[in-house]
Amino acid sequence: MRVELINTGSELLIGTVVNTHAAWLARELLALGLRISRQVTVPDGSAIREALAEAIARAEVVLVTGGLGPTSDDVTRNLAAELLGRPLVHDPEVEAAIRERFARRKLSMPASVLRQAQVPAGARVLPNGNGTAPGLHLAPGPRCPAHLFLLPGPPRELHPMFREQVIPTLRALSPQAIPECRILRIAGMGESQVEEAVGEALVAIEGLELGYCARPGEVDVRLVGPAPIVARAEAEVRTRLGIRIFGEGAETMEDAVVTLLTRTGKTLAVAESCTGGFLSHRITNVAGASAVFLVGYVTYANPAKQSALGIPPELLATHGAVSEAVARAMAEGALARAGSDYALATTGIAGPGGGLPGKPVGTLHLALASAGLPTLHRSLLLSADRETFKFMATQSALDLLRMRLSGNA
Amino acid sequence: MRVELINTGSELLIGTVVNTHAAWLARELLALGLRISRQVTVPDGSAIREALAEAIARAEVVLVTGGLGPTSDDVTRNLAAELLGRPLVHDPEVEAAIRERFARRKLSMPASVLRQAQVPAGARVLPNGNGTAPGLHLAPGPRCPAHLFLLPGPPRELHPMFREQVIPTLRALSPQAIPECRILRIAGMGESQVEEAVGEALVAIEGLELGYCARPGEVDVRLVGPAPIVARAEAEVRTRLGIRIFGEGAETMEDAVVTLLTRTGKTLAVAESCTGGFLSHRITNVAGASAVFLVGYVTYANPAKQSALGIPPELLATHGAVSEAVARAMAEGALARAGSDYALATTGIAGPGGGLPGKPVGTLHLALASAGLPTLHRSLLLSADRETFKFMATQSALDLLRMRLSGNA
Repeated sequence: MRVELINTGSELLIGTVVNTHAAWLARELLALGLRISRQVTVPDGSAIREALAEAIARAEVVLVTGGLGPTSDDVTRNLAAELLGRPLVHDPEVEAAIRERFARRKLSMPASVLRQAQVPAGARVLPNGNGTAPGLHLAPGPRCPAHLFLLPGPPRELHPMFREQVIPTLRALSPQAIPECRILRIAGMGESQVEEAVGEALVAIEGLELGYCARPGEVDVRLVGPAPIVARAEAEVRTRLGIRIFGEGAETMEDAVVTLLTRTGKTLAVAESCTGGFLSHRITNVAGASAVFLVGYVTYANPAKQSALGIPPELLATHGAVSEAVARAMAEGALARAGSDYALATTGIAGPGGGLPGKPVGTLHLALASAGLPTLHRSLLLSADRETFKFMATQSALDLLRMRLSGNA
Repeated sequence: MRVELINTGSELLIGTVVNTHAAWLARELLALGLRISRQVTVPDGSAIREALAEAIARAEVVLVTGGLGPTSDDVTRNLAAELLGRPLVHDPEVEAAIRERFARRKLSMPASVLRQAQVPAGARVLPNGNGTAPGLHLAPGPRCPAHLFLLPGPPRELHPMFREQVIPTLRALSPQAIPECRILRIAGMGESQVEEAVGEALVAIEGLELGYCARPGEVDVRLVGPAPIVARAEAEVRTRLGIRIFGEGAETMEDAVVTLLTRTGKTLAVAESCTGGFLSHRITNVAGASAVFLVGYVTYANPAKQSALGIPPELLATHGAVSEAVARAMAEGALARAGSDYALATTGIAGPGGGLPGKPVGTLHLALASAGLPTLHRSLLLSADRETFKFMATQSALDLLRMRLSGNA
């Protein structure tokens, strides 16, 4: 079943907004054994009609996001109705839901909002529990051989509507065998090193669709095909890469670390300088992190390193804040103050400015203190912009803890 | 000049990777007065050829990202050469650059990497300072009326190559008048409230292209047109929304706050519970934040609130960690320990679990302590997933500080 996605919105094409819908919808569809065969972004306006006309001629399912709101640039509903020759009809139930929503929040209702109660004749209304614009499902008809779903743009409206109201329809439409898709995620190796390790063995497996995806600090190996073939390929990758595989599918490094800590009943504190809170943020993005994560000391300024972590001023004066000695002292200070089982520390120079003689931008020192074990230290030189530096630094720190928790460091 | 963008990569269509290229390239192009009129994502494989054939027939400039790497799924170079009828020729300079790159990093070179030294006849090579795959520029010719740029997928390779090698070519191609584009960013109001405040006045301005974009915690108003018209529209928006405008263009709330702190020579500490480090992370994403940001206490567990911030255990026992009293004590504790001019505190329930009687998931208490001024408190009930909750909570906290720094709270 061919699925196409049209994302509408000028903001996506001038760069004020990153399109996160495509990836989110793709993951939801993949779980149904469906893939997006083409994704198009068009600006608000008549380009939507052109993209719609092309997609409904080619695909069995067309998903459209955005342009259902109350403002004058929201034109998807009207263009679709026009293209399909379905007049817009006022829907009193939708109007009642909109009025009720404003009344419940004690807000006055701008009249423009009622445009959202206009529905193309014969469309199924998908009620919106998190906003005023309902979604619309147009089943195949004379001018449209595809199932067309018009969905709201805001993620918090789109996500529940898609899961609760679109997925059941799609599931009923596609009863075919679902191919297996396995993604193995690897840290501590580059893309060409990963391919060198596993490529030959995988290319030899007939019927396997193979993909690699490299991002800063991680490489994905993607295995798609019939279940027995994917299982065979996975075994080859696991044999060759072993502990370098930190997760599967959408599992992140922080998921892996929180899972290991939870399973072993251990707690963590962190002391961050150059990563500026991002290490704590990544860990606390994992639901349930509160059971294992005690505290983060984001000691950005030197006096904070002294007061919050007890780093001696002489140590800072002798070695500088970006040094092995200070990284170790930060980790050990955090361990002692928090009373945790483990403590990770980061200190380095994220840039763009701040480089020092012998300590260029990109310098990073990591330390991991563990109750009853020697403290580990790693130093790296990363070549990346400020935000990527923060990601790669936290990735390496988490990976160091992951190696220790799994008995490999 | 019509510009189209083709992003290649199956990982974009199965959702392992979010497409950040489109927004990044769009912002770069906008600064040249250019817009992407259509963006398409296609999987690795023959769909790339189809998308290329369509785009080069329609646009004057076609940008393609991805599929130039060393692995077997990297097929963009070959498909483009085939479509344009240009044989691939081995380029010894590219080979030398690749060999030099591996030698410098003391890595052994997998033979597959040399596929990247194959260049379509007549193409201009765009050297890659941050990876092995060079970019390629194919000027208009018999089978291709457009300028075609094939660019690497990894952002750290794409970004400098685009800025240094593609932009100069585009600038030379488009000497037309650059329309003004102004984006005003608003916090503390919803999209329909913003439109109610400014919509009528703006729709009345002839020649103005108007757009709204709502995200959790912020709304953009986008004004495009000839400079005098945009200036008139901007004045209308500023008159009506005033202090609710926190920034322009790509300026974030954290940029605005760091700028205000820097300008007034004031320092900040933060005490975070439910936002788990994200408030510190957002602030430290701003280059130069180290001049104003002293320390973040990510006191996730209650004992850390006591030890790191001096919150009395009785206060926690009486009111619970998620309470006005504890938010105030966290802010005042951080202010005292850090010796900063301001301290922001967050405590709440990010979910999905953890709701309490009278304190549902989404409950948030914010406090702002200021040296020599009464502490401010705000409570909110946010309806959002965990990560959106963290964003909206930090947005509200930063906005509270912004209001105080600008004399409005």
